[in-house]
Amino acid sequence: MTRAIGRFVWVIPEGYIPSESHGPSGPMTSHETACLLNTGETPAHVRITVFYADREPISPYQVVVPPRRTLHLRFNDLREPEPIRRDTDYSSVIESDVPIVVQHTRLDSRQAAEALLSTVAYSQ
Amino acid sequence: MTRAIGRFVWVIPEGYIPSESHGPSGPMTSHETACLLNTGETPAHVRITVFYADREPISPYQVVVPPRRTLHLRFNDLREPEPIRRDTDYSSVIESDVPIVVQHTRLDSRQAAEALLSTVAYSQ
Amino acid sequence: MTRAIGRFVWVIPEGYIPSESHGPSGPMTSHETACLLNTGETPAHVRITVFYADREPISPYQVVVPPRRTLHLRFNDLREPEPIRRDTDYSSVIESDVPIVVQHTRLDSRQAAEALLSTVAYSQ
Amino acid sequence: MTRAIGRFVWVIPEGYIPSESHGPSGPMTSHETACLLNTGETPAHVRITVFYADREPISPYQVVVPPRRTLHLRFNDLREPEPIRRDTDYSSVIESDVPIVVQHTRLDSRQAAEALLSTVAYSQ
Repeated sequence: MTRAIGRFVWVIPEGYIPSESHGPSGPMTSHETACLLNTGETPAHVRITVFYADREPISPYQVVVPPRRTLHLRFNDLREPEPIRRDTDYSSVIESDVPIVVQHTRLDSRQAAEALLSTVAYSQ
Repeated sequence: MTRAIGRFVWVIPEGYIPSESHGPSGPMTSHETACLLNTGETPAHVRITVFYADREPISPYQVVVPPRRTLHLRFNDLREPEPIRRDTDYSSVIESDVPIVVQHTRLDSRQAAEALLSTVAYSQ
Repeated sequence: MTRAIGRFVWVIPEGYIPSESHGPSGPMTSHETACLLNTGETPAHVRITVFYADREPISPYQVVVPPRRTLHLRFNDLREPEPIRRDTDYSSVIESDVPIVVQHTRLDSRQAAEALLSTVAYSQ
Repeated sequence: MTRAIGRFVWVIPEGYIPSESHGPSGPMTSHETACLLNTGETPAHVRITVFYADREPISPYQVVVPPRRTLHLRFNDLREPEPIRRDTDYSSVIESDVPIVVQHTRLDSRQAAEALLSTVAYSQ
């Protein structure tokens, strides 16, 4: 498996990080995740732009996915250029210099029972 | 990021707004959402048609997504030409005059524990 | 809105109807649903084939989606040529004589708290 | 229904098998599933490669989907060349010698209330 599979541009219109969470911290903390897979032989330099409802987009958040590796990126953990606002609607555009595949997952533990959603992102 | 990304026509076959809800009002109220992202430099004029099982479609619901903005549109909040019926199966077609990307999410809080679903809509 | 939007062939690999259910009967009964939208001006004659893990596929289940109507079809309700087996893995292929759009949703109420999943089906 | 429908390469970026589970064992045990449908007349020889965040991919996991059959494959059950690590982020690439369709589902029963997610995988 050395071929680079996927696309260069991915879009996740849904985004929302609740400020509250139940349950043990760590894997059960509410989070939004973009799972990025780089199946190829060169590093994927990824730039993320975050769009809001009522202010200019923030960019670039930058991550590298090494060759033949997956990165399950938590939007909660993004720090530069600024943390993503809590309790706020957002969207994200993910651009890579090599083909990748992106899936969006949210774990919501605002209530005692967690809830999950997931979808393969829109690619172009 | 000034390119307009996406498609002009999106379809969400699933739609259902329960009339009951648990938990605090606001973010935890049962809702159906279409997350609309306009990455481009011109406003997106969006027209929504709602289809039912046993009556003619209702159209147009109209919203504008400003340039470089996201709109997380709650179907619960649509008022004109008429509110969407509760406890009733429906589908929606979303048409824009510039490319957008659409993701469908439902938060269901009819029971004590919420449930979430999400999928990128069908585009053509 | 009189155009026929969508595709002729749709595939839902995931299928499972649990035999147990909690909560009030009706909308909260565990079910698998295929939401079928016919945006066009002619009826959609739909044929469904159900595939199993260890026996021959069963076909055809037949439904009609009228022009400009949605049908949220519960697999639980299919009777002819035979009910879909409970507690059994299955997949479905949905074929229409006019373009339609299909989304798959499952409500699982085997436990006290419901769970939801949904995805736009695979089209070809 | 004897046509082979689908694609040869599928990607599921999201993967995570929790080591804990609640509820009765069997269908309610936490699991990640890839639902594979082979609508055609010849067996599908499927090879799965699993990618991790910090080590080389593991390959090949091999399964056969008989003609006109579905296989709801639990990643939890894969043994050769090695079990998939628990509590660890992973991704998978699924390659077949005939067209198939793949949908990803996770049942998470780490808490008392289950959670479900599902999406049709990315195909290329």
